[in-house]
Amino acid sequence: MALLKCTISRGLLHTFNGRHLFSTVIERRGEFAELTEDDLLHFRGIVGDRCVKTEEIDEYNTDFMGWYKGRSQCVLLPQSVQQVSAVLKHCFHRRLAVVPQAGNTGLVGGSVPVHDEIVLSTKKIVNTFSFDPNSGVLDCDSGFVLEDANARLSPHGFMVPIDLGAKGSCLIGGITATNAGGIRLIRYGSMHSHVLGMEVVIPDKDGTVLKLGSNLLKDNTDLHLHKIFVGSEGQLGVITRVQMQTVPKPISVQSAFLGVTSFDKCLAILRSAKHLLNEILSSFEFIDGETMQMVEQNVGLSGPLPSNSAYPFNLLIETSGTDSEHDLAKMDRFLDRCIGDALAADGVLAKNMSEAEHMWKIRENCSLGLRQDGYVFKHDISLPLEHFYELTEQIRERLRETNVRRICTFGHLGDGNAHLNVTVPTFDEDIYQRIYPFIYETVASIGGSISAEHGIGLLKREYHHKLIDQKRRMFSSRIKRLFDPRLILSPYKMID
Amino acid sequence: MALLKCTISRGLLHTFNGRHLFSTVIERRGEFAELTEDDLLHFRGIVGDRCVKTEEIDEYNTDFMGWYKGRSQCVLLPQSVQQVSAVLKHCFHRRLAVVPQAGNTGLVGGSVPVHDEIVLSTKKIVNTFSFDPNSGVLDCDSGFVLEDANARLSPHGFMVPIDLGAKGSCLIGGITATNAGGIRLIRYGSMHSHVLGMEVVIPDKDGTVLKLGSNLLKDNTDLHLHKIFVGSEGQLGVITRVQMQTVPKPISVQSAFLGVTSFDKCLAILRSAKHLLNEILSSFEFIDGETMQMVEQNVGLSGPLPSNSAYPFNLLIETSGTDSEHDLAKMDRFLDRCIGDALAADGVLAKNMSEAEHMWKIRENCSLGLRQDGYVFKHDISLPLEHFYELTEQIRERLRETNVRRICTFGHLGDGNAHLNVTVPTFDEDIYQRIYPFIYETVASIGGSISAEHGIGLLKREYHHKLIDQKRRMFSSRIKRLFDPRLILSPYKMID
Repeated sequence: MALLKCTISRGLLHTFNGRHLFSTVIERRGEFAELTEDDLLHFRGIVGDRCVKTEEIDEYNTDFMGWYKGRSQCVLLPQSVQQVSAVLKHCFHRRLAVVPQAGNTGLVGGSVPVHDEIVLSTKKIVNTFSFDPNSGVLDCDSGFVLEDANARLSPHGFMVPIDLGAKGSCLIGGITATNAGGIRLIRYGSMHSHVLGMEVVIPDKDGTVLKLGSNLLKDNTDLHLHKIFVGSEGQLGVITRVQMQTVPKPISVQSAFLGVTSFDKCLAILRSAKHLLNEILSSFEFIDGETMQMVEQNVGLSGPLPSNSAYPFNLLIETSGTDSEHDLAKMDRFLDRCIGDALAADGVLAKNMSEAEHMWKIRENCSLGLRQDGYVFKHDISLPLEHFYELTEQIRERLRETNVRRICTFGHLGDGNAHLNVTVPTFDEDIYQRIYPFIYETVASIGGSISAEHGIGLLKREYHHKLIDQKRRMFSSRIKRLFDPRLILSPYKMID
Repeated sequence: MALLKCTISRGLLHTFNGRHLFSTVIERRGEFAELTEDDLLHFRGIVGDRCVKTEEIDEYNTDFMGWYKGRSQCVLLPQSVQQVSAVLKHCFHRRLAVVPQAGNTGLVGGSVPVHDEIVLSTKKIVNTFSFDPNSGVLDCDSGFVLEDANARLSPHGFMVPIDLGAKGSCLIGGITATNAGGIRLIRYGSMHSHVLGMEVVIPDKDGTVLKLGSNLLKDNTDLHLHKIFVGSEGQLGVITRVQMQTVPKPISVQSAFLGVTSFDKCLAILRSAKHLLNEILSSFEFIDGETMQMVEQNVGLSGPLPSNSAYPFNLLIETSGTDSEHDLAKMDRFLDRCIGDALAADGVLAKNMSEAEHMWKIRENCSLGLRQDGYVFKHDISLPLEHFYELTEQIRERLRETNVRRICTFGHLGDGNAHLNVTVPTFDEDIYQRIYPFIYETVASIGGSISAEHGIGLLKREYHHKLIDQKRRMFSSRIKRLFDPRLILSPYKMID
């Protein structure tokens, strides 16, 4: 496949530089109205005075990474689906642009305004929380925080099977709208495996409320329209309620840490885990030697293996089951096989919670620790497993004799999801030019994905436009227009 | 909820009567062209002489149940996506109606023509079969038979996790287009949990080929358009290739049969199984006492429990895992709990393959055995679990003092999916009037689904039109028109 000519816009470059000038490059669309005092009065009538915010709204205008800052003058905090409907109906008629925002924990700038879009926060939509312990189906409003939802499910012995760093802030509606991934996807699948139905408000002339799917595990009575909203990044409507299947909470959780000398052996270990651990395998995480060194240097955490940082590849493998004796026996058998067949050079099984927590602390600090290097070029990509580590090596070759601090990869190997990072003391345009568009074009050329779990948002919009097949994009645009006829929802992002 | 006024059309009635007169009631749409010799010539040029069938095509015109018979004059058997594209392009320009057909094993008449639609069979699209043992992702053409696909995956230790009666005939594309369910959904989820991407041909002016999704487990780069084709019943396009996640094959499979005295106890056993069997639970099937009696009388199969047919409720529970010792220990613990807590009156664990096969033979004959009663009013419905068995009792009350032979329910209790059956010596209009629309209106009024896993097809089209919310149907229609602008694909069915 010929590499695509794909240049990054100056705006994006500047935001990387922390100067938030993106809005000078993507022009504000002239057809959108500007917010007036009358609009605010109308909104106050809908959601109440205290839920129309026009001051101290920086947190709503700024994305989690601090890369993007919009200049919205108004944040609305509706408390019900009826209020969302009335807001969107008004915005349709006035042609006011709107960006839906859930926990605002996204990593691609998808949930903040680019210009002066109204922020429609869903975090106060928390009226209904209903759980059926027979079916395990949760039916709840979209504003619940994931961790809070799990706390409510815990007494029933169930949990939402999505686990990610932002669980203390991300909302049920947000993880649905972004098809969030995380560390347990290898076991439980993506949000598509769990979401059975939803209530969504469309930005059309009536602020139409659609109830799609149902709360039933099996329901083949119509097109599965709710599925198009999973991963739609707020482009089609505002999700106000979600019906989803939860899973029984495991009783036994085991963690093991392995040091491996070649990437091919990592793959052999993955294949072995799928068969020997099979039904209890719940995570298969990858940390390369450079990342381990960084965690030791920047965070002061040593690996659990004696000479850990010496291993070029490290795996953190977790099982979840109902019987610790069984799970330990399976883990022992698996680890014996890994060592016996010389697939792993060393390995250790966490003997208690504290040892397991130490292993997971290392994994969590892979991302956090990098910030101390200075500026981080972060990537969230899917790669065919046989090519998983080649790109890291190509980038190392490409950036030889530059002033990069570190080039390292960690991620969810079991899902083919690599987080490849390049760190530099401060943002560096030369490095930038050497990385982009090379990295995304290479990913595309070997059949990978430029966004595995983080989405497109604002960060990858240019690449989405250039790398996604034109015919497919045309159908995405048509579907967008079908639900959002005036294109007022989340403009300037994935579908534009 | 007020019961909807919903009357069944005369046509549907007649087809129940085996007289296949549906087409006299749903009028043939005048805008569709009639097939000419020139069309046949053109098709021969595309797919080859031998793959344009105009004689001995009864099997393509008749549905699996023998309820519906179309009068198509032409069956096309393209062997590649290019041929499908050329065929659909021609049909678009000529405005010829087309019904895509995979294994033709559906139970709602969705895959046969209603009038003279061209049958486009996908069974010869069998060029690509590619499997990645690292990721477990299968990328194959849509024409492969499910059982054949599994035979090819078996040496790698993987399988497609969908298991249903038609596995020897149904095709990969067909189970995708119908979102097929079956007996392992409680463990592995529906087709939405497995399908990662697909190639689909749209009946537009170019016969556009769309590649949607990918073969990656994580890919958040666009709207998840492929999901809208899962369960679309051939209304939007013809699926020519599917990328899907397979699962590692279990090594140990255990089956147990329980006799239970009340339905509430069945639910308590389900809750217990979810927690005690959890990760190894792979089936939770339900057979009521009347069904057991029928299997004994009509098929000559006795239940595995000493006084089995005496139990009003029977459960067939299966586990799949990697270690038979562990799985047996879990099963023992679970069964001890069921008996100890007086949830099950009796229970037996299959000691060997032959005993397990006997249990599953009973389950398989629940459907097959009914035919010997005479005429069967079959139902495939989802019900909230607390109401799962009430409808059977209501129907018994409603049909008291009529000449029905049997009213019985079996199904996938773990998924809330009931197969409720009423048998009569021959088709009986009075019984018919007492059952319909009562049964579907009741299902709708208690929040169930009139089609759990079989779909809408032709059989339930009237109910779909009346029971699905009008706003939702409007969006389904708009999406249909977006992909199928001349509405030539599968007319007269789900979306019309």
